[in-house]
Amino acid sequence: MSAKILKEKIQQAVEILKEKNIDMWLTFVRESSITADPVMDMIVGEGCTWQSAFIICKDGDTYAIIGSLEKDKYEKNGLYKNVIGYLKSVREPLVETISKKNPQKIAINYSKNSVLADGLTYGMYQILLEHLEGTDYPNRFVNSEEIISALRGRKSSTEISIMKEAIKETLKIFDSVTRFIKPGVSEIQIADYVKKLVKKKGFELAWDEDHCPAVFTGPDTQGAHSGPTNKKVKPGHILSMDFGIKYKGYCSDLQRTWYVLKKGEKKAPPEVEKGFNTIRDSIQMVADQLKPGVKGCDMDEVARNHILAQGYDEYPHGLGHQVGKQVHDGGAGLYPRWERYGNAPYLPLEENQVFTIEPRLLVKEFGTSTVEEEVIITKDGCKFLSKPQKKLMLIKR
Amino acid sequence: MSAKILKEKIQQAVEILKEKNIDMWLTFVRESSITADPVMDMIVGEGCTWQSAFIICKDGDTYAIIGSLEKDKYEKNGLYKNVIGYLKSVREPLVETISKKNPQKIAINYSKNSVLADGLTYGMYQILLEHLEGTDYPNRFVNSEEIISALRGRKSSTEISIMKEAIKETLKIFDSVTRFIKPGVSEIQIADYVKKLVKKKGFELAWDEDHCPAVFTGPDTQGAHSGPTNKKVKPGHILSMDFGIKYKGYCSDLQRTWYVLKKGEKKAPPEVEKGFNTIRDSIQMVADQLKPGVKGCDMDEVARNHILAQGYDEYPHGLGHQVGKQVHDGGAGLYPRWERYGNAPYLPLEENQVFTIEPRLLVKEFGTSTVEEEVIITKDGCKFLSKPQKKLMLIKR
Repeated sequence: MSAKILKEKIQQAVEILKEKNIDMWLTFVRESSITADPVMDMIVGEGCTWQSAFIICKDGDTYAIIGSLEKDKYEKNGLYKNVIGYLKSVREPLVETISKKNPQKIAINYSKNSVLADGLTYGMYQILLEHLEGTDYPNRFVNSEEIISALRGRKSSTEISIMKEAIKETLKIFDSVTRFIKPGVSEIQIADYVKKLVKKKGFELAWDEDHCPAVFTGPDTQGAHSGPTNKKVKPGHILSMDFGIKYKGYCSDLQRTWYVLKKGEKKAPPEVEKGFNTIRDSIQMVADQLKPGVKGCDMDEVARNHILAQGYDEYPHGLGHQVGKQVHDGGAGLYPRWERYGNAPYLPLEENQVFTIEPRLLVKEFGTSTVEEEVIITKDGCKFLSKPQKKLMLIKR
Repeated sequence: MSAKILKEKIQQAVEILKEKNIDMWLTFVRESSITADPVMDMIVGEGCTWQSAFIICKDGDTYAIIGSLEKDKYEKNGLYKNVIGYLKSVREPLVETISKKNPQKIAINYSKNSVLADGLTYGMYQILLEHLEGTDYPNRFVNSEEIISALRGRKSSTEISIMKEAIKETLKIFDSVTRFIKPGVSEIQIADYVKKLVKKKGFELAWDEDHCPAVFTGPDTQGAHSGPTNKKVKPGHILSMDFGIKYKGYCSDLQRTWYVLKKGEKKAPPEVEKGFNTIRDSIQMVADQLKPGVKGCDMDEVARNHILAQGYDEYPHGLGHQVGKQVHDGGAGLYPRWERYGNAPYLPLEENQVFTIEPRLLVKEFGTSTVEEEVIITKDGCKFLSKPQKKLMLIKR
């Protein structure tokens, strides 16, 4: 992450603390190369070895309290106004700093709802309680869910322009795949082709390479999140691909669907067309309703109900998630009211959040039809960041 | 990590559960690409998206309970005997599985002492308590520190042979550096040369590239864990480098020291020789005493006291740490009795653990002398895995 964005984000955090009226936000970590609090990447940018505290205050003060051997590194980068190195224990400078500010509310990074706000391990929580033994500060703990959700969700203009580039580069790779697909090539061959292109262009994959890209050809394919297999593309198959890159620290996440024409066919059979159109229309119906203040669960319902009404099974996952430095980013999501999604379906959406919309359905005997677009919430609606797929792509060979 | 080692490690875990008399070991995780429990890499090898439970039992039974979309992946790899996919909540299959086994002790992954055993986040801990509400199981929780420490520490023969290769490859790179060093090149140039070599050979760096390698030339250098600077090598400098690679999933970590001869010098000045020899001798003194059952704090003391007795300041860090999949691995370490090291200095060492020995001292007006070797604990002593540096290396140009 560039120092520029880190500075923007720390400044944004101060504003969010004011808005939420939280006096201090404490990120408490150790050995970040082993168990990294995901927030480190947003507001620190460096790793740390020993117990370290990164403190952002509502009044704009910032503190990095780290092992003395790492002091130089943090002084050099200049992100935190106060850099305090310690030799034997973090306890003394930590208690001293908190006491000096005497915060009434201290946000720490734990969350049942959002993995991105849940970077504090249970062991580190116990250590923190020990360090603060005999003080009143543990009674002032609140969770930082809201802070982190706002910080990650509300993309700065620098972040938005990087994400647009990421999407553009991803769609170029989809175009190459359209030219590569033909009967006889296997899911694995298509995936390998994509990985080679990504490497050649110097990008990273947005998620685990075992299912990035995920490629599904024909009926009876594996579910989402499964890796590509040796199954070969055949005429009469619906083929879909789920794929994204990490570009300058930000992810893209898109899906496209193709149909492989049989001998003599000039267009896809009506049931294949209907499946694709149902997906496409459900995306547009959601986009028409997305705006600040609506809830993800209601958006999921719009697409889910449309698909059910057309006679298909409902998709066994959420409609869409936020995208950012992580491919599944932010707090709020376009999720159904299922327990596994915690409170994420119920959080009102905010301006400048970026979401995927990715419904899916099965066209019996042909395959899985699925399209995934990325949109950004605007002041009074939403805008597509990806050029939407409006037509089923036909493979003619 | 190869499936072979994962299978070895799961089997080893069953043996350790028997030895420690713990009925069940529960690893409870979600979105492992964001906050990964470090144990995933040892006993799972795959990522997971939704709340997932990986259960290993003393009686040899193993369970993977994961989101239904990821069931295929876990069935394919065959590491867990029982693979259970769920759609809406992990609660039911989790409670059912635990109830069936009715364990008296359930180890979960939290630890104040070892970051490698502290993969359970505080939010996930709270979720686990919710899932088990109304049962007696939370009263049976113990931490998995001992299990993970034994599992990571006790290297299998496959692991040892990979680690030997990693060290061999690392020392080859040190040899190239010896030929590259000359007056006028900067710390950054040396580091860039090393990174290029690593890339060319297809290895990864063992830790953050901002200080891997760490290069220190001459007096008044930055401390350990600082990145290289534009400072240039000059005649009369002591130069040292701290560097390791990640090779087939396992790390190396070594340091070497050079002296840059001044015009007319044929050997290093006596004070430089004395500094190097003090380091070298302190390493050998420790190696002579290392064996199963001794404590790391006593080993640290051997080297620390020798260095103090020779009139130098003590090094501001531990003498050595375990190495494995992580560059700082395992539980026990050769650490002083300082609070920041928790209980790691006091754990008895075990056969087949791999440690670094890395004392450091400052030779005034010349620079930092530091050597780091890797040793493996044997049945009744230890063996060097790296060919030890016995003489100061002289740069003649």
